[in-house]
Amino acid sequence: MLKLDFHPAGRHFLQIPGPSPVPDRILRAMSYPTIDHRGPEFGALGLKVLDGIKAIFKTAQPVVIYPASGTGAWEAALCNTLSPGDTVLMFETGHFATLWKKMAENLGLKPEFLGLPGIEGWRRGVQADMIEARLREDTQRVIKAVCVVHNETSTGVTSDIAAVRRAIDAAGHPALFLVDTISGLASADYRHDEWGVDVTVSGSQKGLMLPPGISFNAVSKKAIEAGKTATLPRAFWAWDEIIEMNKSGYWPYTPNTNLLYGLSEALEMIGDEGLDNVFARHQRLAAACRAAVNAWGLEIQCADPAVYSPVLTGVMTPEGVDADAVRKLIYEKFDMSLGTGLGKLKGRMFRIGHLGDCNDLTLMATLSGCEMGLKLAGVKLAASGVLAAMDYLTNNAAAPALKAAA
Amino acid sequence: MLKLDFHPAGRHFLQIPGPSPVPDRILRAMSYPTIDHRGPEFGALGLKVLDGIKAIFKTAQPVVIYPASGTGAWEAALCNTLSPGDTVLMFETGHFATLWKKMAENLGLKPEFLGLPGIEGWRRGVQADMIEARLREDTQRVIKAVCVVHNETSTGVTSDIAAVRRAIDAAGHPALFLVDTISGLASADYRHDEWGVDVTVSGSQKGLMLPPGISFNAVSKKAIEAGKTATLPRAFWAWDEIIEMNKSGYWPYTPNTNLLYGLSEALEMIGDEGLDNVFARHQRLAAACRAAVNAWGLEIQCADPAVYSPVLTGVMTPEGVDADAVRKLIYEKFDMSLGTGLGKLKGRMFRIGHLGDCNDLTLMATLSGCEMGLKLAGVKLAASGVLAAMDYLTNNAAAPALKAAA
Amino acid sequence: MLKLDFHPAGRHFLQIPGPSPVPDRILRAMSYPTIDHRGPEFGALGLKVLDGIKAIFKTAQPVVIYPASGTGAWEAALCNTLSPGDTVLMFETGHFATLWKKMAENLGLKPEFLGLPGIEGWRRGVQADMIEARLREDTQRVIKAVCVVHNETSTGVTSDIAAVRRAIDAAGHPALFLVDTISGLASADYRHDEWGVDVTVSGSQKGLMLPPGISFNAVSKKAIEAGKTATLPRAFWAWDEIIEMNKSGYWPYTPNTNLLYGLSEALEMIGDEGLDNVFARHQRLAAACRAAVNAWGLEIQCADPAVYSPVLTGVMTPEGVDADAVRKLIYEKFDMSLGTGLGKLKGRMFRIGHLGDCNDLTLMATLSGCEMGLKLAGVKLAASGVLAAMDYLTNNAAAPALKAAA
Amino acid sequence: MLKLDFHPAGRHFLQIPGPSPVPDRILRAMSYPTIDHRGPEFGALGLKVLDGIKAIFKTAQPVVIYPASGTGAWEAALCNTLSPGDTVLMFETGHFATLWKKMAENLGLKPEFLGLPGIEGWRRGVQADMIEARLREDTQRVIKAVCVVHNETSTGVTSDIAAVRRAIDAAGHPALFLVDTISGLASADYRHDEWGVDVTVSGSQKGLMLPPGISFNAVSKKAIEAGKTATLPRAFWAWDEIIEMNKSGYWPYTPNTNLLYGLSEALEMIGDEGLDNVFARHQRLAAACRAAVNAWGLEIQCADPAVYSPVLTGVMTPEGVDADAVRKLIYEKFDMSLGTGLGKLKGRMFRIGHLGDCNDLTLMATLSGCEMGLKLAGVKLAASGVLAAMDYLTNNAAAPALKAAA
Repeated sequence: MLKLDFHPAGRHFLQIPGPSPVPDRILRAMSYPTIDHRGPEFGALGLKVLDGIKAIFKTAQPVVIYPASGTGAWEAALCNTLSPGDTVLMFETGHFATLWKKMAENLGLKPEFLGLPGIEGWRRGVQADMIEARLREDTQRVIKAVCVVHNETSTGVTSDIAAVRRAIDAAGHPALFLVDTISGLASADYRHDEWGVDVTVSGSQKGLMLPPGISFNAVSKKAIEAGKTATLPRAFWAWDEIIEMNKSGYWPYTPNTNLLYGLSEALEMIGDEGLDNVFARHQRLAAACRAAVNAWGLEIQCADPAVYSPVLTGVMTPEGVDADAVRKLIYEKFDMSLGTGLGKLKGRMFRIGHLGDCNDLTLMATLSGCEMGLKLAGVKLAASGVLAAMDYLTNNAAAPALKAAA
Repeated sequence: MLKLDFHPAGRHFLQIPGPSPVPDRILRAMSYPTIDHRGPEFGALGLKVLDGIKAIFKTAQPVVIYPASGTGAWEAALCNTLSPGDTVLMFETGHFATLWKKMAENLGLKPEFLGLPGIEGWRRGVQADMIEARLREDTQRVIKAVCVVHNETSTGVTSDIAAVRRAIDAAGHPALFLVDTISGLASADYRHDEWGVDVTVSGSQKGLMLPPGISFNAVSKKAIEAGKTATLPRAFWAWDEIIEMNKSGYWPYTPNTNLLYGLSEALEMIGDEGLDNVFARHQRLAAACRAAVNAWGLEIQCADPAVYSPVLTGVMTPEGVDADAVRKLIYEKFDMSLGTGLGKLKGRMFRIGHLGDCNDLTLMATLSGCEMGLKLAGVKLAASGVLAAMDYLTNNAAAPALKAAA
Repeated sequence: MLKLDFHPAGRHFLQIPGPSPVPDRILRAMSYPTIDHRGPEFGALGLKVLDGIKAIFKTAQPVVIYPASGTGAWEAALCNTLSPGDTVLMFETGHFATLWKKMAENLGLKPEFLGLPGIEGWRRGVQADMIEARLREDTQRVIKAVCVVHNETSTGVTSDIAAVRRAIDAAGHPALFLVDTISGLASADYRHDEWGVDVTVSGSQKGLMLPPGISFNAVSKKAIEAGKTATLPRAFWAWDEIIEMNKSGYWPYTPNTNLLYGLSEALEMIGDEGLDNVFARHQRLAAACRAAVNAWGLEIQCADPAVYSPVLTGVMTPEGVDADAVRKLIYEKFDMSLGTGLGKLKGRMFRIGHLGDCNDLTLMATLSGCEMGLKLAGVKLAASGVLAAMDYLTNNAAAPALKAAA
Repeated sequence: MLKLDFHPAGRHFLQIPGPSPVPDRILRAMSYPTIDHRGPEFGALGLKVLDGIKAIFKTAQPVVIYPASGTGAWEAALCNTLSPGDTVLMFETGHFATLWKKMAENLGLKPEFLGLPGIEGWRRGVQADMIEARLREDTQRVIKAVCVVHNETSTGVTSDIAAVRRAIDAAGHPALFLVDTISGLASADYRHDEWGVDVTVSGSQKGLMLPPGISFNAVSKKAIEAGKTATLPRAFWAWDEIIEMNKSGYWPYTPNTNLLYGLSEALEMIGDEGLDNVFARHQRLAAACRAAVNAWGLEIQCADPAVYSPVLTGVMTPEGVDADAVRKLIYEKFDMSLGTGLGKLKGRMFRIGHLGDCNDLTLMATLSGCEMGLKLAGVKLAASGVLAAMDYLTNNAAAPALKAAA
């Protein structure tokens, strides 16, 4: 028999930028007995989560919940709104933006990939002015959609989505606006309606604190309208039948019931804490993490403080230090998982996740593990990041609102 | 707060033909902490389940595991092997065969739908001779694939897949052979390699005893080869990258880790019981269930004893009796969920699931609930089905092999 | 590694008269993280369960909760109120009454054991008139306590406690009144205050649907007063310090936190159903069970219909049939556990538990297993008990109040 | 409904010296369905845990497992071996030694309480020479037992049990030797047989990583022999019947099944890690913790380095600083529970638990929380304890043996 827990004694620290550690409450909720997905009990569950998830996206419009992991929701956003050969304007913020572009190509779309030269695009986020300029040029309205990533998980950059909306509006361009906030949702503020996003793509295993396996499309009327003439083939991902059946709390095909139990619990946890408190907690932990990286004298992957991510922090290792060797050492000596450098950043940086069910002491454990691991790996550190983070946290000590018994 | 358990006291009996009741062992396994899907622990898990699932399909070829529910795997089977406008030969065994055909249309394929006249096709399973005849006619080799459902969940008919294979061979036709055994796998004998199936589609929430959320494509070399020229757009469902990464136990995108824990546990449970014992248990319970229906004097939906399903039994209600009213009464009085009549059979029949983690006494509880509910609904019964089932079971008493402590 | 689940496929039916099957909700609640038993969170839990349990005993007086299984609470009742050499009047209702008497002897008390001659006492319950007569004789007031068992788990007899109270009062005797309702609590109506009981002993693993490990003493002022002069040594079981600390929700020593989580959940489940509904459900299931035994032509162990137990039914096997051989066969063939005959009844009867989280279909499964097992064992049955039970249940069909979402 | 989880977001750090954090594996094991405690499956479980626990006590003699929390096992040790009025020699190591002495008095024994003057006894552990001297004086052999605490949970002192054994032997005194290692077992090396202990008392909620609710008496032949003439009343705690029934894996009364599942899992976890590795891990973490306290310039409660506890570290707060106010602040700001000062030490110190399922990063989180809390409370610290602990851990970096898949 395979032992699924093969960590040494004590709790493993899962500090990758998603999947984030799943709280016990959610794991327990997922272990409710599977029920009839056509029965009255399921309908009540369906209505609850379909309604509750809207608050997280800050939308009054439908949110489609797929029984599939996040990459599927990328595909859903494209195939529900576009036709073969359509041009889409995408922006190279990092590895995941690149993967989404590759998917667009695979589906027969023509992505144009804007970006800053060299590796800069992977350190600075979406440049709204470049998008505006490109859209202004497109007098033929060849571009059917603008696609950007909100929180780029490969770098730790959280782009300004409102600015992109303003850019599209300033250009007076009718393109659809598609945004991936797979790793941003429920950790960084996000406003589907206010920012005029047509399709927002997200997933379960980040700020929502669920295991992977659920993904989302929040959609606008304009997106639904576009779907009526879009000709990319679609069946599993097709919105129309799902949105119709969702009105009564059901799905046209078998939903993944037990993960929906988890979603129900996650919505309650987030509701109890308050979405603004969730965002503030993430900002505070991220700031403490950056204080540590700065103290170490290492570079933060995100080069523009205006777009620091509250979800994760990318840490660049000095010239000559293989970031993956450091990660491996930390995994082996301190039983902690960190995120690897992806794509162009392979071996050049590692990523610290501080999202979801994270708190001060978990962050301190994480930073201690990094500091000890960096030292053991022979990396010269300017000063103790752990001390710097403790300074930040004590100077900004939160009073966790202990929830009263109800 | 929504109470997710809103049943009255005592255990709910979930006797629909899937999702089947998830054993506690599997629910517990699913509550292991989510781990890094790029770390060494996950790789070990991945290799285990990717290898173990092959035995269930009886194949030595790759089985693709999708983090998506079963309907997605239908789409995967089609879009990985076919091109827009391709003709596919499908057989109308029931509601799910009809849905698969509709999906093929939605994806831009041209399904031809064979079937027996009237409602007969929904009572008799795939007619291999009709397929052979049609393929022989197709001298232009316009037909690119033959698609059939192994265990039709809407009716309780388990078609003879080997016969379809022989039919294709007899016709000397090069069409791909695609089979849906979503509700048959791990309950009814299935032989992907021996029967020369090119793509077998299945899901997690039936014989594998998992919650919904995982689905499968077992593939042949011929199918993979066909994929190289097939032009239906595909990305999330694309086999090639998945099969490549699966070699080391990983997935190109985020797999649904916690359901894979469940799959790992299910494979152990099935392995411990022995696949042949699993099949025999299903056959025995199904025979006892049919003994009950016969005693009641009600008709079994499947009209051909050669293709009775070991997974579920469709029970036709007498003229004038609304099967859904009976189901509702049973749900309310006896806290048991039965399957509804689907499509053409709406209100005409109900379905009793006896699959997955089912045993003698659970079946007896189920049949007792049916018999009491039918009586309360005013249905005249010829005799007690419960007595008939007990007779069958005592005359064929199994000696459940109590597993020794290891 | 020992496999703790070594049952064959499908759910095991645990139909002994306790431990009763623990509902999933309670098992999940028990898996909350263990917390600081001196912290504020624990205090809230403590106050909740200490208050909630009073409603179950129907008392406004303190209920002491021990982190120990039920036998311990027997000892607690005696050592908190009595002195070495004290005479106690006990009544032989069955095996557990006999064990309690043996314990009294072991602790240095002098039990007098009243009872009907022969095996009759094991079929008829406490005879209040015999107690009254004995107390009237005791003009010296040598008897310090009257000890009876409310629901005798070894036989399925639920004695009339109010009648015993009346007998004591009629005799004008000052003896303390100690009652064991370990298997009766939360299944059969019980009224600590109204019936003037001085110490009620109970446990967790029966009507409360918890695993074993918690036990109770509900106490009266008179009992506490008696404790001040009682000289049996006591420390772990001593009420005074516990009652004092319980005022703030804590215990003087480490309580068993995770079982208290389970108790908290059980109290909510019982509260949601309503205690009277719980009792009515037990009565209904017990009546259906007896209908089956009567139909089989077998004798019910309890010979007085006025004291039939709602918790369990003792079934006497015919002369020459070893009840334990029947039980073993049922365990092996049908994966169901039944209670053995205890003490004088060894091999003469088996016990069917229908307590706690039980419902109609679980009972039908149970009776089916018994009927099939009896037949396979060669026992001649007069008629089908299963049919008789179904008749009873359909003629008395409950409408389980499906709980609405909150 | 009471929310049992009322912590803010993120994991609570339970760093009291027991109950220690229960690993998920154990919580899951405890949620196996409750089974028939008289059935074959239970017998297998019983034999497994009864055998496995012996290795933890390093004994070949019987270990009695009580379904009761630890305080009960104290009582069991006394009442199974002693008679009313017996003199027992106890040593004042701290609060728990004092409580045990109080219990002895409550049970009618005559404890003599040796100890160093003033508060010194609470900083130095058992003084074997004082015991030897007293025993030599006892020429009448009035003293029937020597009772000491191995790991004093209130102070963080682990006394030298072998030295006490040598003292008894040197005095040639026949007294029984009773040792409490409730908080030491499975964290600090303990040798019941080698050290000639007659009764070792322990509990589940410390090094064994279980919730509270199980406790132990490991017994010697001499202890069992003594029991034959000992006259303290006993029933629930009586060894003889338990030891007899344990031979086949059962208990005379209802054992607490679900906690035994947890014990079974704990034994496997400890066996997988290796008992010596468990001890070494505890020593390493304790050393790192002391490095932190020393760096802070605070005093460690244990004044004798030879008897530092591997289980917990007592930290004395400076004159004028209320240790409980610091603890409260840390609980509120950083969601961590620390142990309070008990008895004479109330408000003077707090206790850091680093036992059971603890590892490097959990310790670092703990020390970070302490350091931040002390600073916020205005305590002047000489230097960063966190840095000192990281130095210790990196200089003594363990290579946690990642367990290979089996």
